[in-house]
Amino acid sequence: MADTKAPDSARRSERSRRAIYDAALALVGEVGYAKTTIEGIAARAGVGKQTIYRWWPSKAAVLLEAFVDLGRQASEALGGDADSGIPDTGDLAADLRFVLRATVDEMNDPTFDAPSRALAAEGVINAELGAQFVQQLLEPQLQHYVRRLEAAQDAGDVRPGIDPRIALELFVGPLAHRWMLRTLPLTHEYADALVDYALHGLTPRD
Amino acid sequence: MADTKAPDSARRSERSRRAIYDAALALVGEVGYAKTTIEGIAARAGVGKQTIYRWWPSKAAVLLEAFVDLGRQASEALGGDADSGIPDTGDLAADLRFVLRATVDEMNDPTFDAPSRALAAEGVINAELGAQFVQQLLEPQLQHYVRRLEAAQDAGDVRPGIDPRIALELFVGPLAHRWMLRTLPLTHEYADALVDYALHGLTPRD
Repeated sequence: MADTKAPDSARRSERSRRAIYDAALALVGEVGYAKTTIEGIAARAGVGKQTIYRWWPSKAAVLLEAFVDLGRQASEALGGDADSGIPDTGDLAADLRFVLRATVDEMNDPTFDAPSRALAAEGVINAELGAQFVQQLLEPQLQHYVRRLEAAQDAGDVRPGIDPRIALELFVGPLAHRWMLRTLPLTHEYADALVDYALHGLTPRD
Repeated sequence: MADTKAPDSARRSERSRRAIYDAALALVGEVGYAKTTIEGIAARAGVGKQTIYRWWPSKAAVLLEAFVDLGRQASEALGGDADSGIPDTGDLAADLRFVLRATVDEMNDPTFDAPSRALAAEGVINAELGAQFVQQLLEPQLQHYVRRLEAAQDAGDVRPGIDPRIALELFVGPLAHRWMLRTLPLTHEYADALVDYALHGLTPRD
């Protein structure tokens, strides 16, 4: 039965990998980044710490991959996949409302909230981790906005002079601001208002 | 010379108060919020810790007041005072560019950066401190935008249906996002682009 050995081993690895992601996210949400250790993740996941060291060089690497996986799960729950980007139905406002409402739901989800706050807080004071977070997690997501806004420019739905990499921040900046600082509730109505204001501007149209 | 006693004492108090603010901001920037203590602030300021306890109930209270004072100094350096709000020259775009450029300069100032990151990081994970930070430091600043945008609405420069409390987040949200996450440089050109995009919208005007 040598044939079945590799699949069994792959299944075990996949199970361990998932247990390590879950343990890392739960732990960082409970005790914060500084007090999260490889030993703590291993104990909680029920694996040896050598298993973790074999796959990842540091706790930052484990956590970043666990967050990438969390984002992938959120995308799949929305019926898409992590690389599918923002829908393009030809209706830019509707597509942006869709993705911003989904982002609001994710920000309001406790599974996402606690570990994300721990990582975000560490990134604010730890420039090196912050740069990894931006490069590996955030910027790929922001590039989905760039591509959708570029398509809208091609379709004549966004002014030609607009820089999509700046324009996207009118949508994601306010959401992150409310989430990080907890100023006011993150609702679908708020997401819709941001889309309306950013697309059509604040000044009257003659 | 009993007459001079009160002023001397007031001067001493003012000197101690300023030393305590400076020590609190420097310390939290160096060691973070969790490791900042009343004892540490007292030692660094060269005062007894009872002096601090007489004036403030907690380290959070000292720090919040030190930040309010830092903001006041930044306003004065701009030639205004802390309560003067956003200028109203009748040119909304110019007034917003002025205040956002000043905010960018403040965010790029190391005196502001280190202690602000320490407080912001703590606020992301500590809901109680975050709420105090928002209520005492942030929201009063945001209300300056509300009042300026309301005046612009009265002048017909902003659409009547716009909610000023949401609209202001198109300006401050993206700045805070770049500052906290260090995605891309915070420049005057970026501030100007935000004002242009938010006021005039991303879609073409017919």
